[in-house]
Amino acid sequence: MENVKIAIWGFGAMGSGMARMLATKKGVEVVGVCDMHPDRVGKNMYDVLEIEQAGRPDAIIRDKIEDVVYEGSCDLCLIATDSFTKKAFPKIKYVLEQKINVISTAEEMAYPQAQEPELAKEIDRIALENGVSVLGTGINPGLIMDLLVVCLTGCMTNVESLEAKRVNSLSPFGPAVMEEQGVGMPLDEFNKRVEEGTMAGHVGFAESVGMIADAMGWKVDKFEQQMKAIVTDVDRKSPYGFAAAGDVAGVNMTGQGYVDGEVKIDMIHPQQIEPEQVGVNTGDYITIKGTPEVNMSITPEVEGGLGTIAMCVNMIPLVINADAGLKTMIDLPVPRAIMGDFRDYIKGERKYESIQR
Amino acid sequence: MENVKIAIWGFGAMGSGMARMLATKKGVEVVGVCDMHPDRVGKNMYDVLEIEQAGRPDAIIRDKIEDVVYEGSCDLCLIATDSFTKKAFPKIKYVLEQKINVISTAEEMAYPQAQEPELAKEIDRIALENGVSVLGTGINPGLIMDLLVVCLTGCMTNVESLEAKRVNSLSPFGPAVMEEQGVGMPLDEFNKRVEEGTMAGHVGFAESVGMIADAMGWKVDKFEQQMKAIVTDVDRKSPYGFAAAGDVAGVNMTGQGYVDGEVKIDMIHPQQIEPEQVGVNTGDYITIKGTPEVNMSITPEVEGGLGTIAMCVNMIPLVINADAGLKTMIDLPVPRAIMGDFRDYIKGERKYESIQR
Repeated sequence: MENVKIAIWGFGAMGSGMARMLATKKGVEVVGVCDMHPDRVGKNMYDVLEIEQAGRPDAIIRDKIEDVVYEGSCDLCLIATDSFTKKAFPKIKYVLEQKINVISTAEEMAYPQAQEPELAKEIDRIALENGVSVLGTGINPGLIMDLLVVCLTGCMTNVESLEAKRVNSLSPFGPAVMEEQGVGMPLDEFNKRVEEGTMAGHVGFAESVGMIADAMGWKVDKFEQQMKAIVTDVDRKSPYGFAAAGDVAGVNMTGQGYVDGEVKIDMIHPQQIEPEQVGVNTGDYITIKGTPEVNMSITPEVEGGLGTIAMCVNMIPLVINADAGLKTMIDLPVPRAIMGDFRDYIKGERKYESIQR
Repeated sequence: MENVKIAIWGFGAMGSGMARMLATKKGVEVVGVCDMHPDRVGKNMYDVLEIEQAGRPDAIIRDKIEDVVYEGSCDLCLIATDSFTKKAFPKIKYVLEQKINVISTAEEMAYPQAQEPELAKEIDRIALENGVSVLGTGINPGLIMDLLVVCLTGCMTNVESLEAKRVNSLSPFGPAVMEEQGVGMPLDEFNKRVEEGTMAGHVGFAESVGMIADAMGWKVDKFEQQMKAIVTDVDRKSPYGFAAAGDVAGVNMTGQGYVDGEVKIDMIHPQQIEPEQVGVNTGDYITIKGTPEVNMSITPEVEGGLGTIAMCVNMIPLVINADAGLKTMIDLPVPRAIMGDFRDYIKGERKYESIQR
């Protein structure tokens, strides 16, 4: 069997991280990359990343997707360009119409049914029509505050309510995340942008709440979320961020899913640079009230950047194997670190191979 | 759509617990029970359990399986009678041949490929031939020391080795478990039985190790396990067990899966009555070395009896929806607490309904 063939659309921290990870794996290769950055276009991905090519074919970075992704070009395209379904939609549509499977890093695509039900239906229709499948995933949404919660409820005879809390450090992240999360902003500017609706904060609570509720058969009758600045009282400095005392070091997001008028799903997600400096212990915490109760913690928290890269790459075979259509993490078998040959995971015939013949 | 219809084979702690749980759920009903206990045969399950029947049809306990499970009698049969695949096999075969899906509590059935590869193939063949599916599950094997481990590796770019540790209390369990785990035995009797191979201890390490390794694409070249008595230095008393000072209060099982000559999968599972009395904190712990590292704990441990009952019942719709054949937890979507109507989870046509027509 030929190697599993992957295209990458978007070569920022996520896309290039997936390329790096794929270069360490067996039975899989990157066949092409689409990215607009003029410094990279026309170059071989392995040279740009300064990693061993190890006999793999060149993966040239192109600025036109038509030169990278077309019918028969690959098995699956990783799209790492957007956070919102609406913005990712034209890209997803293009790839699906080439009869190529998609994994998207867009946070809203982890459960597009939550905020974009019409687009979700349209994506499902296009995928079905072209006989391929599409999944949105990442560390969060995608695992920590949703799939893992769902999985842990599986050992319970009854669930009364649950809380998912992710206390993480923004220090490993680059300038784009610093900007999105308001790191270093004066408080009044942060608050003005929250009012204007131009602060991103964490994208994904609506998706995580929707995924959990639908998995368990709860009907959410109200969803709310709040965004508050984490103001630091000492100077904090991370590789790409700086918050002076009195300014914003991160964002505390909270969200609630109401079922039958009560908060049944409670989400708490403070993100900041250098939390250790002020005695904040990072971690992922899931507390589920019911029978039997489950109190889980992961300390420190699972690192977000690497976690998202790993989730997307590790789900590749499961998406190739899936029935056609829009899939979410609760429709597919559990993610798993792929330490063997990617080809050994592929069941039945690959669309790529049927088109090659 | 008619209620999802379930038969139960074996009405001990697990089978009767599942009946109790099902009686609290919507869109599902027990249509019959097979059990040999003369006190129960001929009686209505709801009377035996002393719970509300709430308009559901009678579920009479019969001692002949042919009177309970036959083609068209139900959607799925829960088999809660055995620990070993070889002993469960004739029962599983009978049910599958009635074109009825199966969930088995037999520990070895969680991954029969590990120790009974020939029987696993035969079970798969029979299920395929009859167009139905079969799953073995429970809290452990089934979730804590295998599926949950696999799921957490999903956010890792590389895994070097892992340890799964379950430190639990045997106090909630009944006389059968006390006997199996040697609670109250003098140490020399325990050791004699270990030598003779007649101590049960925990059944499932080979299955958990096989499931994790296959999910990740590791080839296990050696598997070993050890069983040691936990001797108490104080008297310990639980509802169904008693261990005098100097006698056995439980079993410490350890196991190792070797990959390329190194221990990559390490299993540690001490079980005893009244661990709190001697300062032992119970919990489930998963430590995965690699990138990024994952250190998970659930404290106290997920209660084993309720956990197994919940896993079996919550997997019902996923098994009914599955393609035909032998399935394991790594083939199916994640378990989830079913708090809504069971019928809302069923996709496509039920075999039960197609036979009824």
